[in-house]
Amino acid sequence: MALVNDHFLKLPNNYLFADIAKKVNAFKAQHPKTDIISLGIGDVTQPLCPAVIEALHRATDEMGTAASFRGYGPEQGYDFLRDAILKNDFLARGIHLDRDEIFVNDGAKSDTGNFQELIRWDNSIAVTDPIYPVYIDSNVMIGRAGVKGDDGRWSNVIYLPCTAENGFVPELPSQRVDVIYLCYPNNPTGTALTRDQLKLWVNYAIKNDALIFYDAAYEAYIRHDDVPHSIYEIKGARKVAVEFHSYSKTAGFTGVRCGYTVVPKEISAATLTGERIALNPLWNRRQCTKFNGTSYLSQRAAEAIYTPEGRQQVQRTIDYYMQNAAHMKEALTAIGLHVYGGNDAPYLWVQTPGGMTSWRFFEQMLYNAHVVCTPGVGFGPSGEGYVRLTAFGSHERTEEALDRIARFY
Amino acid sequence: MALVNDHFLKLPNNYLFADIAKKVNAFKAQHPKTDIISLGIGDVTQPLCPAVIEALHRATDEMGTAASFRGYGPEQGYDFLRDAILKNDFLARGIHLDRDEIFVNDGAKSDTGNFQELIRWDNSIAVTDPIYPVYIDSNVMIGRAGVKGDDGRWSNVIYLPCTAENGFVPELPSQRVDVIYLCYPNNPTGTALTRDQLKLWVNYAIKNDALIFYDAAYEAYIRHDDVPHSIYEIKGARKVAVEFHSYSKTAGFTGVRCGYTVVPKEISAATLTGERIALNPLWNRRQCTKFNGTSYLSQRAAEAIYTPEGRQQVQRTIDYYMQNAAHMKEALTAIGLHVYGGNDAPYLWVQTPGGMTSWRFFEQMLYNAHVVCTPGVGFGPSGEGYVRLTAFGSHERTEEALDRIARFY
Repeated sequence: MALVNDHFLKLPNNYLFADIAKKVNAFKAQHPKTDIISLGIGDVTQPLCPAVIEALHRATDEMGTAASFRGYGPEQGYDFLRDAILKNDFLARGIHLDRDEIFVNDGAKSDTGNFQELIRWDNSIAVTDPIYPVYIDSNVMIGRAGVKGDDGRWSNVIYLPCTAENGFVPELPSQRVDVIYLCYPNNPTGTALTRDQLKLWVNYAIKNDALIFYDAAYEAYIRHDDVPHSIYEIKGARKVAVEFHSYSKTAGFTGVRCGYTVVPKEISAATLTGERIALNPLWNRRQCTKFNGTSYLSQRAAEAIYTPEGRQQVQRTIDYYMQNAAHMKEALTAIGLHVYGGNDAPYLWVQTPGGMTSWRFFEQMLYNAHVVCTPGVGFGPSGEGYVRLTAFGSHERTEEALDRIARFY
Repeated sequence: MALVNDHFLKLPNNYLFADIAKKVNAFKAQHPKTDIISLGIGDVTQPLCPAVIEALHRATDEMGTAASFRGYGPEQGYDFLRDAILKNDFLARGIHLDRDEIFVNDGAKSDTGNFQELIRWDNSIAVTDPIYPVYIDSNVMIGRAGVKGDDGRWSNVIYLPCTAENGFVPELPSQRVDVIYLCYPNNPTGTALTRDQLKLWVNYAIKNDALIFYDAAYEAYIRHDDVPHSIYEIKGARKVAVEFHSYSKTAGFTGVRCGYTVVPKEISAATLTGERIALNPLWNRRQCTKFNGTSYLSQRAAEAIYTPEGRQQVQRTIDYYMQNAAHMKEALTAIGLHVYGGNDAPYLWVQTPGGMTSWRFFEQMLYNAHVVCTPGVGFGPSGEGYVRLTAFGSHERTEEALDRIARFY
């Protein structure tokens, strides 16, 4: 008799964004003529830049003739892209990596979800709270998260609160932790860690033989020099950290699907008998077995953002979004809201007024201002009392949303 | 202390195709001027058809302007593609499926590797032998396959031998089995099951409350009317079978990355207390958590193969490869080899002469004819004494390879 993996049954029935969509659709059904502006889901709105479009046309033409047609590519990604990554994202910052430490993928969500396969099912994990739900849910599915308590917390997950009280800087855990998920610049709070703050975590991991799964999906939005673009800027990180990158927010690739994961050769985990096992060959084996490489077209598209024109064009779009972020922060602060993040990330984390719950404030915004935000509690217990706004809209729509919020507030 | 998932350490160190590449590269290093023809790895050689190329250019242009730009798509795939699949691959064959039973993916390898996540780690699996290595390796990684014996067999895997003796038709298992992997038309043997033969398996699964993971990646190569294109042509299959499809071999998408998985709403697995859990919502949850949808470009490309022009063009390429298969079978049989498969699949399964081992015959072909094949034993114990040849070469190169084999043999 086929038995189900019953860890799946522990998951809450709905996914945060599905819940939001349901509420928005219900409102739309009752008010079909109302113009709703979404500052909720973190999807981009600006088109792919010309350098990427040209690369896609070129790659398409290549695929149309036998002489230049490309079938299966390397599971780890083409050398042309891995070399561009090494040179531009790392060497330019003084970080030396080898080509086979780079694994090109179809976006960071897959690998942040899958990488936990390499560690034992009973290792403990720590997450900053609030958090991107994929980190926890992927651990629930394999049974590693334990059971969910009435307080919304999983028994085998250590929560590291990030709130206004601690300036959104998580404290080092006081209990034993095997794996730590960090995302900086942070989704959902839009805050960042400085080099010195991140250093504490690398040192903690080295001292405690823990691993750091570091999600750097928003690094392109960093504006301040003391904020590291990669955890490998910190000495010793190669021994303890895996880093996830994505072109989704960097270059508007949410529909193109391409990113990469860095697995340094020094990083290892132990067997029960204390033998050290390097994770790089294990991840390679995992990818060769369960992944057949990223679309050739997507990889050529990614390569194009590293050309001089591509870099300029991509930067222009990032600046465009960051102008939104600055303007949003200013306008929302001016009407008396407490607003965090948005300096080195495309997200703003807004405290609900008067201790209102996240969902209540979400509903008020939807019903009164016709603006969709994301309730903070959907990202974890410490997200209660906040909502997330994204800076990915057009200038015009963002402006309009701010006007409406000011009017209702 | 972070502990490694030590199931990974049970895997053999090398992947079949890496072993082959090593031997070929060693030969090339010693004979740099020798022209080697590969009929080994199952990758296509003919370019994407014009309808697909046009669709890719169109989709690229759409992504270049804000009005038509597409960001995140549905994790399950766009409706335009799911509807084309329903209509062309199923309704045209009298099979009624719902749109939300179709999950578009980045190729069948991912989902055939990942779908086992939905079942308990201690369920037993049965595989036809020889077999596509991904089915077993993905089960090894999670601990389900047990331990590997000296005979090369995993303790919790039931092997269903397919050899010349039983006409490559597997016998129903005599032991308890929870999940059965079937791939028809078969990789690597190139043989097919008739509707009546497959019916036995569906009935077995219904009677024994087992699941069938059915890989239909090669269905486009079927030439005979009594060979089913989908397991859902068999009554009752909706209750027990998940079906994996791929555009890789159908339309040369090995570098484009697109396929789909069918998870009917009736299919379920049990909890320990006997409750039935539908797998469709579970798979949906898995995909929403760990997958962010397939590239918009790849999905538009896939849609194009269902247009009248696309269908014709794709069929022409399949015919081209199947001409190779027919010619190979004829020529190799003429020189006295026993050749199987190739009638409804792009693979030929060739018995080694005089009881030679697979690797020995591989080496002879490489050293004497400079043709690369795949040693059958790499696909499982019952593959010993066979090699696989693929029909994906150009006519000219295939011809040349046959001439060389005839000369050396």
